Amino acid sequence: METAPNPTEPVTEVIRAAGDHVPGLLQRVEERLAALAEGHGPALAEHAGATIAAGGKRLRPLLVFLAAGDADGDGLVRAATAVELVHSATLVHDDVLDGAVLRRGVPTVVATGGRGAATATGDLLFARAFAELVRNASPEQIRVLSDASCALAEGELLQRADAWDAGVSVERYLERCELKTARLFEAACRLGALEGGGEADGIGAFGRRIGLAFQLLDDVLDVSGPASRTGKHRGTDLLDGTVTLPYVLARERDPELAALDLRTVRDPAAAERVCDRIEATGALDAARRRALEIVDDAKELLPAGLSGRRRAALELVANGVVARYA
Amino acid sequence: METAPNPTEPVTEVIRAAGDHVPGLLQRVEERLAALAEGHGPALAEHAGATIAAGGKRLRPLLVFLAAGDADGDGLVRAATAVELVHSATLVHDDVLDGAVLRRGVPTVVATGGRGAATATGDLLFARAFAELVRNASPEQIRVLSDASCALAEGELLQRADAWDAGVSVERYLERCELKTARLFEAACRLGALEGGGEADGIGAFGRRIGLAFQLLDDVLDVSGPASRTGKHRGTDLLDGTVTLPYVLARERDPELAALDLRTVRDPAAAERVCDRIEATGALDAARRRALEIVDDAKELLPAGLSGRRRAALELVANGVVARYA
Repeated sequence: METAPNPTEPVTEVIRAAGDHVPGLLQRVEERLAALAEGHGPALAEHAGATIAAGGKRLRPLLVFLAAGDADGDGLVRAATAVELVHSATLVHDDVLDGAVLRRGVPTVVATGGRGAATATGDLLFARAFAELVRNASPEQIRVLSDASCALAEGELLQRADAWDAGVSVERYLERCELKTARLFEAACRLGALEGGGEADGIGAFGRRIGLAFQLLDDVLDVSGPASRTGKHRGTDLLDGTVTLPYVLARERDPELAALDLRTVRDPAAAERVCDRIEATGALDAARRRALEIVDDAKELLPAGLSGRRRAALELVANGVVARYA
Repeated sequence: METAPNPTEPVTEVIRAAGDHVPGLLQRVEERLAALAEGHGPALAEHAGATIAAGGKRLRPLLVFLAAGDADGDGLVRAATAVELVHSATLVHDDVLDGAVLRRGVPTVVATGGRGAATATGDLLFARAFAELVRNASPEQIRVLSDASCALAEGELLQRADAWDAGVSVERYLERCELKTARLFEAACRLGALEGGGEADGIGAFGRRIGLAFQLLDDVLDVSGPASRTGKHRGTDLLDGTVTLPYVLARERDPELAALDLRTVRDPAAAERVCDRIEATGALDAARRRALEIVDDAKELLPAGLSGRRRAALELVANGVVARYA
């Protein structure tokens, strides 16, 4: 890729491939999210309204729609909205814990409302997701979303339990990524397939691999920067005590990194130095290669019976996950 | 009541009235809660296990069972477990916000695991509630629980929005209690009725009134103490900026209380003085009377067709709510 990566471009391309109905569906999700923010009184409108309206890539709703084929009913919009609400809930809670002031360029709920309001707002978005999805009258769909929601929280707990542990294994790291990220991507695909009347396992497995690659590449980006692109300094994970794949791979190549007490990495300048050192081992390239292999796996997992157009659109999403980090 | 109130006594009496199957059902809820704490890996077992195992009154599961009549299937246990999980999730999040060190005599999740682990643990308990209830394959039951969960979070947001506002009206206060407490009591009754195959509206309305009275009396107790009974000093709500019915009623009787800037009440000694002043107006008795009226209303709302034994058990629960505060 020669041009500067633009995260919205692959999405535009996907929509072109997927069919004319997808932009309309995404617009209906925006409208539904806006209506929900308004419909819970001024407190939610004030706090969560900003977070919800500020958008984001809406990658998970897009996966719901692509997994559903040509379906475009209200049930599909509800499923996509529910997945995005769960995702938004976790962002709001993450911001509370990180004390983050800005997200997507707008003030966070914790910045405007304080910790109490932000914790409650996350809880409300989460409850709202189930209230939304239950209207599809499908216990199977609720099961998919509640299982993914459990996984999200378990992943967060695993991350906390492993904090500052420089010896975390690759397997343990991947397990955490599965729980924290991949399972909600899988849920998005499964919900789309269920609403669209298609087979859910193959496309669910695709979504899960894509989500895993997404998290790996996100973790690479935290080490590689540049800050001008990510909007935050390099090594924020290290400063949080979160050990990710680049460090795990670099540790095996650089004994001094392996011997590092992560708690001594306390400020952005120190984190930057560790990032340089990780990069010097070639671990970032190795982690990227691993993510690309996972994306290739994902494409292989797409069901054989998919229409050419649907397959093309899903493959573009897979490529888009990679392109964000090219 | 002449003897010192013992919160477990009315429950024992209720169980005796309700029938021999109720203790077995409550025991199955305990076992299920313990299994869930074990089943999410060491992180949840460590953190939430203690909270869950430490018990509590299990008033909400009891309501589920009483509302279900003679039913005793696994679906009923799942419904009761789900309601208790939602309740536990809110307790864990409340403790994060209050920085509470002990609950029910055991260390809180936030005390043992920190804010991050506690926020994630609350999220997990919440997600687990839906994963549990979905096994009943009833969208209607999921709707009841998700609506109540939304209400809980909205009540929390309302409380934060009204913090330090000495001019909060009685209506606004009652609205907050409905959202924060009454709606989950109602959900417990509705779920029981749905699983038991009975009519859910009347018994749901009963549960809602009982929950409202429960919250009113809890707020009275925060002002009346004694600390030896509540385990915390008097006036913790005032120190949090939470304006409750005793203050609202006292404000109309004592102009100096009405003129008070709540932000100047900053330490337990100051809160104690305000509590004394509220008590001197007779507002505590007025608030208690209001709660008793609500309990009487609740009993009136019980469906006419209930068996004598079931009615007796539910009325005992209603009386038990009052007795806790006698």
